[in-house]
Parts: sequence; structure tokens; C-alpha cells
Amino acid sequence: MKKTALIMAGGRGERFWPKSRKRLPKQFLSLTDDGKTMIQLTVERIKYMVDVEDIYISTNREYRDLVTEQLPEIPEENILCEPVGRNTAPCIGLGAVCIQKKYEDAIMIVLPSDHLIKYNKMFLRTLADASAVAEKGDNLITIGITPDYPESGYGYIKFNPDVSDGHAYAVERFVEKPSLEVAKEYLETEEYLWNSGMFVWKVSAILKNIQLLLPDMHQGLMKIKESIGTAEAESVLEREFTAFTSESIDYGIMEKAKNIYIVPGTFGWDDVGSWLAVGRIKKSNENGNVVSGNIITIQSRNNIIQGDKKLIATVGIENMIIVDTEDATLICDKDSVADVKKVLENLKICNRDEYI
Amino acid sequence: MKKTALIMAGGRGERFWPKSRKRLPKQFLSLTDDGKTMIQLTVERIKYMVDVEDIYISTNREYRDLVTEQLPEIPEENILCEPVGRNTAPCIGLGAVCIQKKYEDAIMIVLPSDHLIKYNKMFLRTLADASAVAEKGDNLITIGITPDYPESGYGYIKFNPDVSDGHAYAVERFVEKPSLEVAKEYLETEEYLWNSGMFVWKVSAILKNIQLLLPDMHQGLMKIKESIGTAEAESVLEREFTAFTSESIDYGIMEKAKNIYIVPGTFGWDDVGSWLAVGRIKKSNENGNVVSGNIITIQSRNNIIQGDKKLIATVGIENMIIVDTEDATLICDKDSVADVKKVLENLKICNRDEYI
Repeated sequence: MKKTALIMAGGRGERFWPKSRKRLPKQFLSLTDDGKTMIQLTVERIKYMVDVEDIYISTNREYRDLVTEQLPEIPEENILCEPVGRNTAPCIGLGAVCIQKKYEDAIMIVLPSDHLIKYNKMFLRTLADASAVAEKGDNLITIGITPDYPESGYGYIKFNPDVSDGHAYAVERFVEKPSLEVAKEYLETEEYLWNSGMFVWKVSAILKNIQLLLPDMHQGLMKIKESIGTAEAESVLEREFTAFTSESIDYGIMEKAKNIYIVPGTFGWDDVGSWLAVGRIKKSNENGNVVSGNIITIQSRNNIIQGDKKLIATVGIENMIIVDTEDATLICDKDSVADVKKVLENLKICNRDEYI
Repeated sequence: MKKTALIMAGGRGERFWPKSRKRLPKQFLSLTDDGKTMIQLTVERIKYMVDVEDIYISTNREYRDLVTEQLPEIPEENILCEPVGRNTAPCIGLGAVCIQKKYEDAIMIVLPSDHLIKYNKMFLRTLADASAVAEKGDNLITIGITPDYPESGYGYIKFNPDVSDGHAYAVERFVEKPSLEVAKEYLETEEYLWNSGMFVWKVSAILKNIQLLLPDMHQGLMKIKESIGTAEAESVLEREFTAFTSESIDYGIMEKAKNIYIVPGTFGWDDVGSWLAVGRIKKSNENGNVVSGNIITIQSRNNIIQGDKKLIATVGIENMIIVDTEDATLICDKDSVADVKKVLENLKICNRDEYI
């Protein structure tokens, strides 16, 4: 069956401030040593499985130029601009009807644009396994990551190891971010995987489930589908999409639908959730410092220092994150990385939009 | 007796990098909230006691323009440019012969240009007391600072509390920077003061002592004195001064001369020896942060943050020194402030003169 992909690139992540900004979110940044941006790596990865004319990017109007600039090979009509952000369910629904307009039915692979994967061949193998199960019926397949450690920052999915179809296991339930204690228990049971936010299904299968579980949205999506290619396409999209309720695919569909399967993957996945990820992704020097730019470190260890032309000299510091950009510098203890968002809250309160 | 002052401003201090540079050393920086530079504050302070036409600045050619720019009221002929750096003894000797050429004899107050004093009236009172003892004979008076705590970074002077002349006590010996243990013992004896590097004497008295203890230098100084005002002045200064041995006034004169007295002072003295001084001098906010510039601090305490236009955001940091300039940023743990010089060593080794 024809394989298509929807890459979700509408996120406005704030956790890579000051490099990420409202006008340049994480998926359009390069955080790896190869200089490629997160979304470029995502497309490069899936191109081995999906023809480039069948790769769709969902984003919003503000980022359309970034997408066309960074991904010139993607056909312009495959860049789907949401008029407003309504979370993942409407985003995926829009992708599904666009694909259905082109093909009667097809496999649809849904991928975030800002995750990192180390072992691309194993990743493709996992997607192929998931596609095989998806083709068999109206199954909804989610890709689960085999946990390395009890992470309390991710969602988990409980599966039944005794009910499987090919490489897929039946899903019992989705759970929100657990406490560290609970996460440890999960790992011991060997029945929980991390929720990666990647999905594989037939377009017809996801739309059937939307019709069943989110019928209002389904009606709107059908109107959008009819209008594609007509003069009213844009105004119908604007009207119908704006009327959708904000809903995540996890909560709106996956937690309620039947025939949910999970295919476990171990392909070096990283959700690149904060500057700490750069310490995992990039090579560190003999002092444990991950540096780029014009840097001198004196008796400094285990720091992440991302500079540019300006000289940054560190003396006697440890466990810090330093990110220098043209107009703003972040200096953050690694243990406080979750509080970077408070800088942004402060900037918003003070209407200092130039830094956001 | 006529009072004159020599302000020594030839230092190339590296401890305020990246604000201080070879072309802009500490004495020409503003480190206080009033925006005045260290040397401007020094002149302002002594002007209440010494006429501006009797204030001499010793520096070197590289800093002449900075001196005339920052101190336009000082007569040009009072700016003494040493052809080379030869430590404090030749510097003071040159000042002495310049003053002697103008006045037969006079009180000469020698001051560093980069110290800070909080209580200016008490400072002037101390200098007046010292001048009174200096006038009486060939006494060499040093200003001692009553210690607040056992500092191991300063030199100490032992005096005899039972031998005094006016407010001055007879000096027994000079001691180099002691260990913390020894410094504690010194404080308990109540017979040690900090060596401030400030001196008061008659010009005739210091020159007599130079003649006795550094006779070669005295011969050279006499030739320089004769040449002042003639066409050969510059070439004689160049030749004679360059031939001087490098010698500190402490080691060359004070530790060997007779009639050494000390006048204790408690006028809120700070030698401003490192960025830590800025934490003592400037007002801190409720979190103990001393900040200037465009700064946001989130859960950050007891830091010194000196920025400018660029936004600096700190998250979860403590006890740090952050100094941002146009081309270089320092990020240093307060406990490692002594290692800032290693940044400069590194820059020198790599011939990165633009940052030095």
C-alpha cells in the first residue's frame, strides 16, 4: 500500500531559548554537529521510505517560509498551514483528508519534526513493522520507545505482551507523566513503553475513528476535503479549522479507540526536550564540556556552552548551560533547566517581545 | 608646608578582564555606581587637600591620552610618563624630582590610582595627621589600614604601639602576604596593620633615603631633574629611567630605612583587587545579586552580573561573576576569581591580542 507521511511542525517550543524564538522554534534549529536542522533530519530520515511528493508538513502561516527555505524539495501543496493551533487531533485530521483527496487509501506515518533518532535503519525497520500491522485492518499503531531508565518527564503506554500481531502488541492504556517512583515500577513490569508521539495507520482507519469519537470534527474535515482544489479552499479551511475544539490525538482518539497497537522501537530516540539534550547529542571534550563557538574554559567541567563569534571565557564553573546569541545570553544551572520558561514568562509580562 | 600629591597610574591590572584590557586598565574603569572612574575618584578625593596644579599623575605613554581625557583639570606638565615600567621606587623618585624642581621642599602624598575609599573626610584627616609627622623631620610615613578580618592577600606592617609621634607609630617591619593562620595571629597581637601602599613624606626626606639606599638611582634622578625644562628632557628621561633597576618602594626603601612611621586609618579602604570587590562596593538587591545592565535573574542568588545592552538571563545560578562586554564574556565562579588571569595566559599563548 502507498506510504505517506505527515510531519508536524507547528510547535512553538520555548525550551531552547534564547536560540529558539517565536519566529524560529526548535524544529528549525540545528542542534547537532552536522549543521542540519531538526526538521531537515526528520525529512531526510523518512525519505528512504516515503516518496518526497508524499511527505506532508503541517505547520502554521508564520513558519511557511522557514519550511520552504529549509525543505525546498517538498511540493508547495504538501505544506499544510493551520489557520490556528488546535493541538494534534485536528492537525492529523487535516493531514488525513489531504492524503485521502490524493489517494483512495494509504498508510499514513505521523512524525514530530523535532525529535532526534540515532539509528535510522532500525527506525525504518520499526516503521515497516508498524505499517504491516496497519495494513491489515483498522488498527491504530503507536511507536513505543523501550525505556533506558525511569524518566518521569515522558508519558508511558501499557501494553499486553501476550496479545500481539506481528511485531505489534495490544495497548491497554496511556498514562501521563508518572512520578519517579511509579516510573521505576513501570520499568520493572516490562509492560510499559515511552510514548514517542509517532503513529502509523491507514488514512481510512484514523478517519473512521475520528468520525466515531470526534464526530463534529469529522464533519468539518469532510467539508475541508471537498473544498481542496476549489476557489473556496482557504476560506473553508479557515472557517472549519478555527471552529475545531483543541484536542490531542492521545486524549481524543488513542485513549478511547479500539484496536490500538504498539510497536516497540530501540533506535536511539531523543525528544530533545531541553538544552540538556545537546549534552547527550553532541560530543564532549575531555573535561566533559560540550562547546561550540569561540570558547575558553579554565577549570570548568560538564558544561554545555553554545557560543558564536563572541569570546566566552569560563573559570571554575561546573554543570552549567551557557547559550550566547546576538541579543541575549542564557546562563543556567543544568538542574534548573526546567525554569528557562520563567525567563520567557518574565519577558512576556514586561512586553519585551523582541526577545521572545 | 606646601602639599603635593603623586598618583600612580601605570598599572596594567588583569584582574578586571574582560572590562580591563591592556589599553584600558582598572584605574580608568568605573566600578562604582556613580559612573566615575577609579582615577577620577582618587583625584576628586585629594583635591580637598592638594591644589590641582600640585597633583602629579605618573603613568606611561600608552595611557597619557586616557589621563588627559579623564582628568582634564590636571596640568599637562604634571602628567609624568615613564618610558618603561620599573616598579614603584623609580616612579616615586621621578615624581619627587619633578616636585623638587618646582618647590624647594614640599609634603609629597603618594597614592595608588585604583583603590577605593568610603569615608573621604576620615581619609583626609589621616593624611593630615601623617603630614604633620612628616613635616617634623626626615620621617617616612606609611598609611596603615586597621584590619577588619585576617586577609591573607595583603602585606602587613608591624608597628610598636609604645613608640609614637603624634598619631604615628614607629614601624618595626614589613611582612609579605601571610598564611591565613599567621594573619589570624597578627590580628590578635593588635600590632599589625594592612599595607595600603599610600605614603606621606617630605620630598627632601624620600630623596635623601634614595641617595642612601639606591645611590645609582639617585644619580640618574638628579640628571633627570637637571634636564627638566630643557630640550634634552625627554632623551635624558628615556636614557636614565630605562637604566634603573626595577625596584618596589617597599623593598628598596621602606624595609631598610630608619624613621619609618605608620598612621593607622579606618576610612573604608578597598584595594578593589578583583571582581569580588564590585560585590562589596555596589548595592545588591534582595537576592544578593549585584547587577547592572539588561539583566533577568530567575532563582539566582549572590551573583555579580555586569552587563550592558545585551540581555543576560540567569536561571538557578549562585555565587557567580558574569561580565559581558562587546567582544568577550566572562563567566566565573566567585571562588575561582584568582584564575581569571589564566584566561589571559591562554589568550597570550594563542596570540589573541585583540582580547588582551
